[in-house]
Amino acid sequence: MKIHGKHYRTIWTLADESIEVIDQTKLPHSFETAVLKTADDCADAIRTMLVRGAPLIGATAAYGVAFAMKKDPSSKALVAALDMLGATRPTAVNLRWALQRMHEALHNRGHDDRFALAWAEAAKICDEDVEVCHAIGVNGLNILRAAAAKKTGTLNVLTHCNAGWLATVDWGTALAPIYMAHDEGIDIHVWVDETRPRNQGASLTAYELGAHGVKHTIIADNAGGHYMQHGKIDLVIVGTDRVTANGDVANKIGTYLKALAAHDNGVPFYVALPSPTLDFSMAKGSDIPIEERSGDEVLKMTGRLPDGGLATVEIAAPGSPAANPAFDVTPARLVTAFITERGVCEATEAGLKSLFPSH
Amino acid sequence: MKIHGKHYRTIWTLADESIEVIDQTKLPHSFETAVLKTADDCADAIRTMLVRGAPLIGATAAYGVAFAMKKDPSSKALVAALDMLGATRPTAVNLRWALQRMHEALHNRGHDDRFALAWAEAAKICDEDVEVCHAIGVNGLNILRAAAAKKTGTLNVLTHCNAGWLATVDWGTALAPIYMAHDEGIDIHVWVDETRPRNQGASLTAYELGAHGVKHTIIADNAGGHYMQHGKIDLVIVGTDRVTANGDVANKIGTYLKALAAHDNGVPFYVALPSPTLDFSMAKGSDIPIEERSGDEVLKMTGRLPDGGLATVEIAAPGSPAANPAFDVTPARLVTAFITERGVCEATEAGLKSLFPSH
Repeated sequence: MKIHGKHYRTIWTLADESIEVIDQTKLPHSFETAVLKTADDCADAIRTMLVRGAPLIGATAAYGVAFAMKKDPSSKALVAALDMLGATRPTAVNLRWALQRMHEALHNRGHDDRFALAWAEAAKICDEDVEVCHAIGVNGLNILRAAAAKKTGTLNVLTHCNAGWLATVDWGTALAPIYMAHDEGIDIHVWVDETRPRNQGASLTAYELGAHGVKHTIIADNAGGHYMQHGKIDLVIVGTDRVTANGDVANKIGTYLKALAAHDNGVPFYVALPSPTLDFSMAKGSDIPIEERSGDEVLKMTGRLPDGGLATVEIAAPGSPAANPAFDVTPARLVTAFITERGVCEATEAGLKSLFPSH
Repeated sequence: MKIHGKHYRTIWTLADESIEVIDQTKLPHSFETAVLKTADDCADAIRTMLVRGAPLIGATAAYGVAFAMKKDPSSKALVAALDMLGATRPTAVNLRWALQRMHEALHNRGHDDRFALAWAEAAKICDEDVEVCHAIGVNGLNILRAAAAKKTGTLNVLTHCNAGWLATVDWGTALAPIYMAHDEGIDIHVWVDETRPRNQGASLTAYELGAHGVKHTIIADNAGGHYMQHGKIDLVIVGTDRVTANGDVANKIGTYLKALAAHDNGVPFYVALPSPTLDFSMAKGSDIPIEERSGDEVLKMTGRLPDGGLATVEIAAPGSPAANPAFDVTPARLVTAFITERGVCEATEAGLKSLFPSH
């Protein structure tokens, strides 16, 4: 997608066999990039959320394996890199999926080939992610077209967190259909949940929708239920970090509350799901490990001062502790359907298997 | 309640017939008070949320009428003051209740008596609020005792926004039972919803619980559903700005989402309800006017810099607009019971009439 008229992916390779990524901790205040040259660089970038979003985490981890193989192509180094990168964030399954794929591509190959193979495989993971997201966009666009055809006036979509192109290599998952609908002239407006505590909605989703010219309004996470009660939201689309065999959905903390409100008000609730996010090895959502992050993310906030500089301020009562679970699980019963790269399906094991029989 | 060991109410009179209030826009960063001397001062204090919380708004408005009568005790001035103060905030019914009560106390009385009568009536409103909140505390304490008796270990209560003593003249509504439970030695812990966009949970509720020594943890508004799914919340108590005849509850935006989650997880959801907040003139919650506040409350955040100074930072993507509904309506069907000064009742018209037959 474009920033200031220039096309970007979120991750790209450089001539010296390093990679460059958009530094998402600096957005929306400034657009900066960072160069990653080692497996440790990649792990740090994932851990500190310099890169984030399930698909982008997977792509970054794949390059991390390639960097490890450049330094030391031994099988011991391969296992160590897979372990180290796999421990960065526990909830997103794409990370494990990408590392498993790198393992399969490399473990039976000669040491001399490993770096080149790893580099090529990481590039393939990135290119495939773009294709998958584009296909999700096309499949979701049909849903938006149908919803727009049923009403007069603006189509109002709510999204939570950022499942846009910044969360992927390009296009996004939940936002891909929205970009396509906007591009073909559907009158669409997006309610953007702020998404506390890291504000990925107010900072990243609003930033990328604004850069593309899509109408949007930031709201507190508290407000979505109220707008559904008042008919101001036609449908919800969110991304996901892991979907279990029964269709339960791990996604950014607070997604469950919006799914409950959607269900209570008869508002369709869609989850955009690239197949690497599917985890058939896990039966149900309550098995998913939920990452606990630092309470400082709740207690502090970074923003722009009137003079244009950045500052981090403490916003809560001094001395009060905070807890910070990063994800929650939305039960499949609250999900209207999954939008995948192969089509749209019911949020059930049967629905998922109808599209991904051999997964 | 106490701050730094000294007992305070949120509003008190001074010898020169002015009033002093705790400036709640400065909390939790600094404890400051403000002196109000005119009806305009009172209206500004309510509008800018220097004072907030339904009961405290009513008390402040009552003194506003008294100040107006001091300046000009004519009936024209009385009507003008009632109109001006009544227009400050649309959702809380206590404001209208207090103004109606001032009107009844004054409109048939001689001009010479009006200021003294108004001053006495405002003081009575304050004293009665303290009694009402204390009685809510006693009635709610029975619920907390019973819940604590049913489990081993800490009793975990979630609250949203601030319905503590800072929202009232003293004691609070939702927090009054919690203070009493803590004081009698019940092992109690409070999950404090941050309560975006004005952060009254992270700033005011955490501040007053901390000052009283009650265990608490601040969480993003997004997290409550997750903790309910995991059995970490035994019950919810919130305050309210207006309850309609059928038991629907207007309260701080986001309350509805927590009520949905409580219902979905079998967690009891209580609303602490002082009778001045009851509005039998309104049939149902969808009739309640919902205040829309400035989007800047969503887009900016004030906090403490590392050097101890305060700064306001812009946190969202530059140029993105925000919407800011201040309240939502929780349907009566999601409310386990009301805790009132006369006892506990079902969230139905019959339940409310059983305690307040002549209301």
